[in-house]
Amino acid sequence: MTAEIWDTIIVGAGLSGLSAAHLLRKRDAKLRILILEGKDRVGGRTMSTEIPAANGVDRWDFGGQWVGSTQIHIMELIKELGLETYPQFNTGKKVHHMGGPSAKVRTYRTNIPALSPMVLMDLTHFLWKIDRLCATVCVEDPLRTPNAVELDSMTLHSFIEQHTWTSELKEEMGLCSRSVFGMEPSQMSFLFFLMYAAAAGGVLPLLESTPGSAQEFKIKGGTQQLSECLADRVGWKNVRLGSAVTAIWQDAEWARVKTETDTFLCKAVIVTCPPHLAAKIHYKPSLPSERAFLTQNMPVGHMIKFIITYHTAFWRENGFSGEIVTGSSTDCPFCVTFDATSPSGNAALVGFIAGQQASQWSSKEAQERGEAVISSLVKYLGPEAASFIYYEEKDWAQEDYSGGCPVNVMAPGLLTYYHPSLRKPCGRIHWAGTETATQWCGYMSGAVQAGHRAAVEVLAELCPTTLTQEDQEALQHIQTFKGSGQKTPSSKLMYLSTSKVVVIALTISAAVLLAQHQNALLKAKTSLMDAFSKTDIFKL
Amino acid sequence: MTAEIWDTIIVGAGLSGLSAAHLLRKRDAKLRILILEGKDRVGGRTMSTEIPAANGVDRWDFGGQWVGSTQIHIMELIKELGLETYPQFNTGKKVHHMGGPSAKVRTYRTNIPALSPMVLMDLTHFLWKIDRLCATVCVEDPLRTPNAVELDSMTLHSFIEQHTWTSELKEEMGLCSRSVFGMEPSQMSFLFFLMYAAAAGGVLPLLESTPGSAQEFKIKGGTQQLSECLADRVGWKNVRLGSAVTAIWQDAEWARVKTETDTFLCKAVIVTCPPHLAAKIHYKPSLPSERAFLTQNMPVGHMIKFIITYHTAFWRENGFSGEIVTGSSTDCPFCVTFDATSPSGNAALVGFIAGQQASQWSSKEAQERGEAVISSLVKYLGPEAASFIYYEEKDWAQEDYSGGCPVNVMAPGLLTYYHPSLRKPCGRIHWAGTETATQWCGYMSGAVQAGHRAAVEVLAELCPTTLTQEDQEALQHIQTFKGSGQKTPSSKLMYLSTSKVVVIALTISAAVLLAQHQNALLKAKTSLMDAFSKTDIFKL
Repeated sequence: MTAEIWDTIIVGAGLSGLSAAHLLRKRDAKLRILILEGKDRVGGRTMSTEIPAANGVDRWDFGGQWVGSTQIHIMELIKELGLETYPQFNTGKKVHHMGGPSAKVRTYRTNIPALSPMVLMDLTHFLWKIDRLCATVCVEDPLRTPNAVELDSMTLHSFIEQHTWTSELKEEMGLCSRSVFGMEPSQMSFLFFLMYAAAAGGVLPLLESTPGSAQEFKIKGGTQQLSECLADRVGWKNVRLGSAVTAIWQDAEWARVKTETDTFLCKAVIVTCPPHLAAKIHYKPSLPSERAFLTQNMPVGHMIKFIITYHTAFWRENGFSGEIVTGSSTDCPFCVTFDATSPSGNAALVGFIAGQQASQWSSKEAQERGEAVISSLVKYLGPEAASFIYYEEKDWAQEDYSGGCPVNVMAPGLLTYYHPSLRKPCGRIHWAGTETATQWCGYMSGAVQAGHRAAVEVLAELCPTTLTQEDQEALQHIQTFKGSGQKTPSSKLMYLSTSKVVVIALTISAAVLLAQHQNALLKAKTSLMDAFSKTDIFKL
Repeated sequence: MTAEIWDTIIVGAGLSGLSAAHLLRKRDAKLRILILEGKDRVGGRTMSTEIPAANGVDRWDFGGQWVGSTQIHIMELIKELGLETYPQFNTGKKVHHMGGPSAKVRTYRTNIPALSPMVLMDLTHFLWKIDRLCATVCVEDPLRTPNAVELDSMTLHSFIEQHTWTSELKEEMGLCSRSVFGMEPSQMSFLFFLMYAAAAGGVLPLLESTPGSAQEFKIKGGTQQLSECLADRVGWKNVRLGSAVTAIWQDAEWARVKTETDTFLCKAVIVTCPPHLAAKIHYKPSLPSERAFLTQNMPVGHMIKFIITYHTAFWRENGFSGEIVTGSSTDCPFCVTFDATSPSGNAALVGFIAGQQASQWSSKEAQERGEAVISSLVKYLGPEAASFIYYEEKDWAQEDYSGGCPVNVMAPGLLTYYHPSLRKPCGRIHWAGTETATQWCGYMSGAVQAGHRAAVEVLAELCPTTLTQEDQEALQHIQTFKGSGQKTPSSKLMYLSTSKVVVIALTISAAVLLAQHQNALLKAKTSLMDAFSKTDIFKL
């Protein structure tokens, strides 16, 4: 049996792999590139599916769905591919339920949830602490962060325990962790959390749907189109679906990439699948032990995403935005929902069952889970929520060649001991995938950035003359951080001036004073919000 | 191609797999059992090798080597196989070096290292806390431990930071973690640490070479013999070496176990390989997601073990036991050494480079590493250490089908969310390996216990009439903990009476008072030691 020969083989036809292929082809159209994918579709952790809706059928995203204006890599790609975005609907009352099944369900209209003045003060103080630490993190080389080893030796949970004083805020932070990572605060390194937030420009951008945040826009027609359009450009003949890579063997001359039935020879490989799947590939010679230890310390999150379609967006009519956030102490399966009405007007909600709730609910029957979701929607949005058209869910833990969603986190100690292996090539093998990104890692934008970085590495090896000025600068930037592991303080300056700290302190005092009168609560929050927007303190 | 048919297939010819096979055959000699092993030898994480020594050559253990009298499963096996044990030599001065390269090198003769009174008080208090917590842990179902979720949400490092007040003790605990797990305290859940210690009868039994402790005896001729003798009994024709299992597919009738070249059919499978390797097998249908998440959160430790042979045990002649413990702040690569003189009198030392030091030193050239080891031995034991016969090391991270040693730990959150999957069979697949044991898990004894438990599970399915009364009781015990995840307090009582606490407090006060005079230090320690032995407080 003669093995096919290619220049570069890419493992995984998600956004990262296809972005890498696209850049390689743009730089040198003659490069023979093969993309091998285990699934029977492209798109990886993005998947757009048609389901019954008010006007027949419509398409929704069951995987990654949001993009934001500060996510430059994905925004550029959207523009290049001629796709359109539209904003996440967020007008109206938001629902907030924490503190147990019988606790009061509150509503609010700002970006900060309906909290008591004490919790609000706790939150303000906590976010200030986190954002101050975030600003000291060097994403490219997290060990340069001051006090890095200590920050990496504790879980996010431990930091929350030490630096919050209200149980409501602790529950709130559990919700944030669950909805961002599909994991509990006990399961990740605190330094990883800071690095992840720093790569997104701060903590609030991870959580919000305001301009510049992670949940700002959606893509008309769904996000899977990005991968489909890229496959169009790269050529579908170069994409082999249902071809899971089982082994990569390297010798002096070739990398041999094996699937269950075939062997391919090439000069460079880009592995884009998430770390826990990259760990399943059989490498010969074995990868350096640090790389093996790295992948053993990067578990993936667990999310079940659902879309529920309605005849009308009744919540909008009743003054609600469709956003519901609930703590794990309630009996509600999901942690968050948003309006998901399609650009063509088909009313829908999207929601997430995540982290420990995903573990608990995934072992139950689909019907029981669906009924619990709907009964919670009825509780929070009114009886109209029971009259839905269609309910569809996607448990990403059950998806072959994903096994979880949205991202792999880093366990405590990983950044201290094994981080240099995250992006360091192993012979002919280069590493991509959103987990290896330095801007918006864990997001679609990070997937594109990582794919481009790996492609530039490959070009530098195979055809360095094709590198543009920009590529060369990117390559130089990578080189700068190759001698990683240095524990020098970040060159990035703390961005909080003393005057800003004073503004916060005064604002909190004012908020507390105002809030001493129960009816002044809203006023207090408004003044806090005003102060935030004026000092711009939570934006990096 | 016709697939071979077997009753039970065991994945892994280490102690756990061979113990399982041995028990299966003892219960029903007609059972057709096949053991598939990736390596070209039996023994898993035990490996006994001949190297040059004073009287020609002799055999030393480069993997697991110690057993103890409270390790009932391995002790019974040793007896059954007719092997002999001999005690770990521990007479004479021990060397202790912490607090940086230039800190004073101290020697001591008791079980508690040479520490200042303040550190000794810190240690006493800390061990008291840990052992009190240990006694509340339910190893079979750790979630029954009081405050389990909180204990599992922090790293061992965080607990140490919160409950010790001297930097010396923090360094000491790093050394303990490294030498027991091949990992740093930042890399594991504190509840996991407690559970691991509880399964061994407490923290001190993990660390000591006293009666009942983990380092009490060695086996004449080496520990790999255990697996070789078991393979003799099971029949070498039933053991296929160089046959790594790549996939296990299950249908209504069969389990199909695949290697790169063959497929075998059977009714039951016992997977004994460590969790990070079990995760590399391709399962059809996919395993429940909790099981996949479990294996993603169980990284393996990193240890490099070395044996160095000498013409004479010069350290004994100079009054040293051969035991050296050094902190990571020194420039010594190893964390601990012991006398390893063979039963036939060939002088040797054994040592371990572990955890972060293994990571750092494994990337260097073997010669540089060896020279650093020898130069440290010279520093601590005298110039005779330079005149060695032979130096041989084994980096377990480089060993195919091991990838690390001695054990896989559990990251924070695992015990809270995924623990029930640790031993729960998945269809025809049963799980063994020392990580699944409940007594001395992580040790050879645990491997045997786990193998027996899995064998009993298989017998209950395939030929329940062969089960003995003892097997049935074991089975019932397993059933008791099947409804795990309950957060009720452990039924085990705290074993520390108030009077004992008073004794400790008084002892510490006395020690501190005495130690105010520098020359009274030894006296203080002796009085502490006396108090320990009288109250028997550190023995469970």
